[in-house]
Amino acid sequence: MRTLKFTLAYDGTAYIGWQRQAEGLSIQGLLEDALSRMEGAPVGVTGAGRTDAGVHALGQVASTRVGFAHDAGTVRRALNATLPPDIRVLTVEEAPASFHPRFDAVGKTYQYWIWDAPLLPPGLRAWCWHTARPLDAARMDAAARGLEGVHDFAAFQSAGSDVATTTRTVTAARVYTMPAAPDTIPGAPPDVMRRLVPVTGRFIVFEIEADGFLRHMVRALAGTLIEVGDGRRPVDAVSDLLRGRDRGAAGATAPARGLVLVRVRYREP
Amino acid sequence: MRTLKFTLAYDGTAYIGWQRQAEGLSIQGLLEDALSRMEGAPVGVTGAGRTDAGVHALGQVASTRVGFAHDAGTVRRALNATLPPDIRVLTVEEAPASFHPRFDAVGKTYQYWIWDAPLLPPGLRAWCWHTARPLDAARMDAAARGLEGVHDFAAFQSAGSDVATTTRTVTAARVYTMPAAPDTIPGAPPDVMRRLVPVTGRFIVFEIEADGFLRHMVRALAGTLIEVGDGRRPVDAVSDLLRGRDRGAAGATAPARGLVLVRVRYREP
Repeated sequence: MRTLKFTLAYDGTAYIGWQRQAEGLSIQGLLEDALSRMEGAPVGVTGAGRTDAGVHALGQVASTRVGFAHDAGTVRRALNATLPPDIRVLTVEEAPASFHPRFDAVGKTYQYWIWDAPLLPPGLRAWCWHTARPLDAARMDAAARGLEGVHDFAAFQSAGSDVATTTRTVTAARVYTMPAAPDTIPGAPPDVMRRLVPVTGRFIVFEIEADGFLRHMVRALAGTLIEVGDGRRPVDAVSDLLRGRDRGAAGATAPARGLVLVRVRYREP
Repeated sequence: MRTLKFTLAYDGTAYIGWQRQAEGLSIQGLLEDALSRMEGAPVGVTGAGRTDAGVHALGQVASTRVGFAHDAGTVRRALNATLPPDIRVLTVEEAPASFHPRFDAVGKTYQYWIWDAPLLPPGLRAWCWHTARPLDAARMDAAARGLEGVHDFAAFQSAGSDVATTTRTVTAARVYTMPAAPDTIPGAPPDVMRRLVPVTGRFIVFEIEADGFLRHMVRALAGTLIEVGDGRRPVDAVSDLLRGRDRGAAGATAPARGLVLVRVRYREP
């Protein structure tokens, strides 16, 4: 048997989430099915992050133990030929037998994307949340910086979770903006990526790296930061909520479609 | 009565095309329904280009005649609140009673987007075609330049068309590339648009402006240019096909999802 490590990108819109469940299409389930066909026997896959229904990934990491002998490039091509086009295997690597995508991860980075302009471009609607009110990104950034360090995130956990501790270490948290506008320079080669945005506006991105996340934690934080950004809460609301540990006091959970698992970091071997 | 001119962007994936038909959801139909509710009476809408099922637009132009008195900004907001998020009204302007979006257009520009790398990123799959073989964009560009001028495009028209003439004037045609890669500069603010592309690759864009287009003409041209790009046809194949006027001899019609109506040009008033 050998251990394979996968890096995956997916558009989570059509899925019940990473995790296989009794009903519905999951990313884990489709990957396991594809690998099981190659192996000729049931194969299990472990992921670094259990992304929820509708949540995306640009760098999810997963691993499996298999007996087949195909080289990594062949496995990648075979998986991409089998999986639907909204799930892509970016890399396949050999890994030590002891490798565990979740337990070995030293940091996971999520981004929450918000489109801050009246019109959400059609080409981005699956990847961004869109708010009607204008947001003050500097206020949101000041509030986000207060998340860095070791904190009890009980106030930002969804009901029904069963975890040993609600304390997590946030290594970096910030909010930044990125302006976007259609290409308006006549004669210049059009930039296709910018053309996906046929209106002028800006992205507000909440980025957070931590050693782990509670259920719906990033979306609850994003929802609270948005209420800081639109003036409904003061900048120090986040610190107060951390101290209070009361989920009912925090902001609404922001929708899944704005959330992206960007990368999983491992200790250099 | 007054005449309103609309500029629209849409993701055509979910629609039977621009044109209203007896069955299925069309962009024209949804726009007419929304305006009819505002008018309290049936309202018709005319478009500049009849985009097919699955074809996108970043700058479709349409017009209508209505009696209601709401100002242009209110009409835009009301339409965007009613229409689904994959159809956005970018601008609403007053226009002269004589304005006709198709007959008054002096040029329409379409782009056909191809992703030229082994892995098509999930976030782009609705907007690009993806070829398995590598393409020589310089050969495709040389072939595309041969389309400029006045030509009989009978070889690039789908069966079942009924038009007075198959001659069209192409004012510009070219193929260019745009590299895309994930942000790899540590510490630099991540560029969200590039993050939609978590793998290194490039776009090949076929852009064509003409006074009008035959049914499936851009997709038949794109399909033929791809066969030039992958070496199956010589560079002068396009010119030979124009002379031969035989649809059976041209390349396969490329899929709708790569095609985008980028803009409609009108004479300066």
